[in-house]
Amino acid sequence: MFLEAVYHRPRKNWSYAYNGTTVHLRIRTKKDDMTAVYALAGDKYMWDHTMEYVPMTKLATDELFDYWECEVTPPYRRVKYGFLLQQGHEKRWMTEYDFLTEPPANPDRLFEYPFINPVDVFQPPAWVKDAIFYQIFPERFANGDTRNDPEGTLPWGSADPTPSCFFGGDLQGVIDHLDHLSKLGVNAVYFTPLFKATTNHKYDTEDYFQIDPQFGDKDTLKKLVDLCHERGIRVLLDAVFNHSGRTFPPFVDVLKNGEKSKYKDWFHIRSLPLEVVDGIPTYDTFAFEPLMPKLNTEHPEVKEYLLKAAEYWIRETGIDGWRLDVANEVSHQFWREFRRVVKQANPDAYILGEVWHESSIWLEGDQFDAVMNYPFTNAVLDFFIHQIADAEKFSFMLGKQLAGYPRQASEVMFNLLDSHDTARLLTQADGDKRKMKLAVLFQFTYFGTPCIYYGDEVGLDGGHDPGCRKCMEWDETKHDKDLFAFYQTVIRLRQAHAALRTGTFKFLTAEKNSRQIAYLREDDQDTILVVMNNDKAGHTLTLPVRHAQWTHLWNDDVLTAAHGQLTVKLPAYGFAVLKASSD
Amino acid sequence: MFLEAVYHRPRKNWSYAYNGTTVHLRIRTKKDDMTAVYALAGDKYMWDHTMEYVPMTKLATDELFDYWECEVTPPYRRVKYGFLLQQGHEKRWMTEYDFLTEPPANPDRLFEYPFINPVDVFQPPAWVKDAIFYQIFPERFANGDTRNDPEGTLPWGSADPTPSCFFGGDLQGVIDHLDHLSKLGVNAVYFTPLFKATTNHKYDTEDYFQIDPQFGDKDTLKKLVDLCHERGIRVLLDAVFNHSGRTFPPFVDVLKNGEKSKYKDWFHIRSLPLEVVDGIPTYDTFAFEPLMPKLNTEHPEVKEYLLKAAEYWIRETGIDGWRLDVANEVSHQFWREFRRVVKQANPDAYILGEVWHESSIWLEGDQFDAVMNYPFTNAVLDFFIHQIADAEKFSFMLGKQLAGYPRQASEVMFNLLDSHDTARLLTQADGDKRKMKLAVLFQFTYFGTPCIYYGDEVGLDGGHDPGCRKCMEWDETKHDKDLFAFYQTVIRLRQAHAALRTGTFKFLTAEKNSRQIAYLREDDQDTILVVMNNDKAGHTLTLPVRHAQWTHLWNDDVLTAAHGQLTVKLPAYGFAVLKASSD
Repeated sequence: MFLEAVYHRPRKNWSYAYNGTTVHLRIRTKKDDMTAVYALAGDKYMWDHTMEYVPMTKLATDELFDYWECEVTPPYRRVKYGFLLQQGHEKRWMTEYDFLTEPPANPDRLFEYPFINPVDVFQPPAWVKDAIFYQIFPERFANGDTRNDPEGTLPWGSADPTPSCFFGGDLQGVIDHLDHLSKLGVNAVYFTPLFKATTNHKYDTEDYFQIDPQFGDKDTLKKLVDLCHERGIRVLLDAVFNHSGRTFPPFVDVLKNGEKSKYKDWFHIRSLPLEVVDGIPTYDTFAFEPLMPKLNTEHPEVKEYLLKAAEYWIRETGIDGWRLDVANEVSHQFWREFRRVVKQANPDAYILGEVWHESSIWLEGDQFDAVMNYPFTNAVLDFFIHQIADAEKFSFMLGKQLAGYPRQASEVMFNLLDSHDTARLLTQADGDKRKMKLAVLFQFTYFGTPCIYYGDEVGLDGGHDPGCRKCMEWDETKHDKDLFAFYQTVIRLRQAHAALRTGTFKFLTAEKNSRQIAYLREDDQDTILVVMNNDKAGHTLTLPVRHAQWTHLWNDDVLTAAHGQLTVKLPAYGFAVLKASSD
Repeated sequence: MFLEAVYHRPRKNWSYAYNGTTVHLRIRTKKDDMTAVYALAGDKYMWDHTMEYVPMTKLATDELFDYWECEVTPPYRRVKYGFLLQQGHEKRWMTEYDFLTEPPANPDRLFEYPFINPVDVFQPPAWVKDAIFYQIFPERFANGDTRNDPEGTLPWGSADPTPSCFFGGDLQGVIDHLDHLSKLGVNAVYFTPLFKATTNHKYDTEDYFQIDPQFGDKDTLKKLVDLCHERGIRVLLDAVFNHSGRTFPPFVDVLKNGEKSKYKDWFHIRSLPLEVVDGIPTYDTFAFEPLMPKLNTEHPEVKEYLLKAAEYWIRETGIDGWRLDVANEVSHQFWREFRRVVKQANPDAYILGEVWHESSIWLEGDQFDAVMNYPFTNAVLDFFIHQIADAEKFSFMLGKQLAGYPRQASEVMFNLLDSHDTARLLTQADGDKRKMKLAVLFQFTYFGTPCIYYGDEVGLDGGHDPGCRKCMEWDETKHDKDLFAFYQTVIRLRQAHAALRTGTFKFLTAEKNSRQIAYLREDDQDTILVVMNNDKAGHTLTLPVRHAQWTHLWNDDVLTAAHGQLTVKLPAYGFAVLKASSD
């Protein structure tokens, strides 16, 4: 046994309450090292009567490790536990202190999940599991009111976007095109910032209590939210609380009054006067961007101001939550207070943090409900789009992610394939729609909340910012109708089958040096098999299955398994989504 | 390279801010597998100009692993980082995603410590590093006022304690004997509960706002705290917030009025009436103890009541903090609010949780300052007292603990060797004072806050509860004066040398199958070498040292090293505490 590879530590993904009665236990072992793993678990105050061995199953696997999981439902909400590792006849008992060759005589030195306190259980809003998001960059979605266009606004779509140009997009434009969202089938919209700011992206907030006049006003937003809600569409706004803009009045005051400004401590000032020396501002900023001074969210007045804004827009316009910009650079303590305020205003509000890296510290129930899942993005791009990962590596990347978070976090991860911060998916795929479709199909048949970046569904392309911020195409003759229909179908499929959202996930095939994958999503209702060929040559896959009859959800074709083997023939970049008939 | 053994994950002990400017990075590798390890670290927004390779050194080692550590002080408080692992000429770069054979081309997939926000930095009160605690079980320390003796009080020390007897100890008794504490040299007292309750241990609180009349009243406590403070002694009280007593009026109300009681939701009631069926109460309790109903600390009124009590005793009597009973079974959310209230009342207050197992989730800056360090207790008892661990195993147990917590947590761990919940140290040592002394010497020359259980210093013995709760011996002729002098000396040594509190710690020898250890504690001021022989035969140790001249701090003997080797001859269970002369 490679005991050095074994890892367990209480909490995070390793032992957590999934709900008020259930604790999940997980352990990592060297890949293919153990033949069986058990948790020994019981109530420490009545160990002899409650201790039992609970078999663990493999949740996931990656290059180096197997990840095992089991579920316990302790009658008195307390769990003392250890693990029994087996390799053939060899056995080791893992305690918090040691690996033993005999069972522990008592529970004293075992691990512990002391008590399931419901208030500590991480429970994202239930609706998020079923959400399908659409991201709108408001300056580029639609111009519904030319009266609010800024000076120098360019005719819609008349030029490639630059970092500083304006095309006049606004909230009325979104209102005018809600039918497009309904037709597509999404049920949630995420807006990049709407508040008053100087740039076209509005990440340099000037006034957190005012909708940018170029976009409309509070009433326009209220109307938009109401109309969305009528259609069953939730609305998420972008809170830029890490930094303000340079024109934020408190910062202007410090620029003007320096040491004497009463707002001096609202920012992180290294030295006065505020200036930029050799490219480095004398005050903390987002990155080294002088236009975005970092806010001191520990200052009571700053905290009060921002939390008031967070509450204000929920109460005033009924929005369904906040996406938090550069969330990882703001203090945890601030986010805990933010959560309290936001959930008090709307217990169902969704809190989504922008974090590009490992995020478990924010996903323990006291801060965010989800993060923008760029590690997922990278896995999908590496396999489907850039083809630098083979099927096996792809499965390992996902397995590691799945094992690294509590299940309830994986269920609501915000899975995006592109955004205003990346090149568009179609462009990354060098215009190859077939690759793009596979990536999207995967996104819509995996755990987590999919998000579509506006325009992807009609074939918009564009490189890195500013290229990815093109005007939305409203001339339907220029829409890629095939792509639009594809998106409609994957959305409908996901919505029709809970198994695609929260069912178990299992790869049936994902081999080394292969570009084909097949996986099962399964719950009490449905067993769905997704098969993909991410290769320029056609391939035939033969898959071990338990069901005989399979219906292709795309075209109602029926496939039949013979002797527990299902043969699926796929063209270049082909796919099949098959549902087992109950038989 | 055994890459399966390598572990790093952002936060906790692996990457944490030690203060407002410094981040510690740690990584685990298979024991003796790597010849060198580096962190590559820089600012992600200016990677090429800031990235550097920082050499890591071995912090600790255990059976299976080496633990490496380095310190970085990022000028803009942001760290993007990975690791370079070397085994001879073989190199691997560890990122958040993978092990690479080439340096990463950019920082995108590295680990991240996004920003040092001071408010998130775990900083226990500075005084705790220098504290030496004395634990008092008030019913058994001294009877200073016979007027408040409960009915049936037994004459002081006239019998072995039973679970239900009373001897009349009280706060006036403590006041009367403060000279004893000063003479001993401690600078902090931890009292087990003082509030009104029915038992002799008072862990079944009836009134959180009243000192038990058997002990005195608020004024007596206030007087006691003031007198302690005059002597430079801090005072810590015990907060029993997990459960109340059976006579707590809200519980009495539920007992009487059942479903109609307005206090019904103050507890965790499974079914009414409140009763005990087959040994299991129909309501949650501490363990299965019917006299201790678990409080519903999520209920706003309960929370308000308890937080008011926490604040009340700080404001009214000036106590220096709280020890929290069964702290691990109360919600994290409650403890976060508790911390806010307590630190607002006294920013220097010390919050000590009772947690017997791995405790890192409580030691991240938002909940406790320290926990009762029973894993340390177990290591010391296994080696010095029960002799079931050899020197090597002892060093491994400590190494694992040291590597498992941020440095600031290790510096203030509450290191106890016995308490009202265990057999007394002398009894565990089968009356062998020599073993006991070695254990105590280690306790006083290691990281963390030592605590002496009342009476240990004069030779009190006693088995498990109730044996360990004997009356304090006040007849000086019955005191073990040698033991008392020993405690005085170790206390004086610890107070005189910061190196023994916060200096680096390094084993010079701790071999397999050996019962001898030697270790260095070192800071800018002092280099102190402690050598112990935990064996019934005498031993001579030869130790590699950098200094030539060593003074025995116990008796001013001088030892001289020859050719970098110091020879220390120790009798059975002997020890030496040697200070290097600057030469």
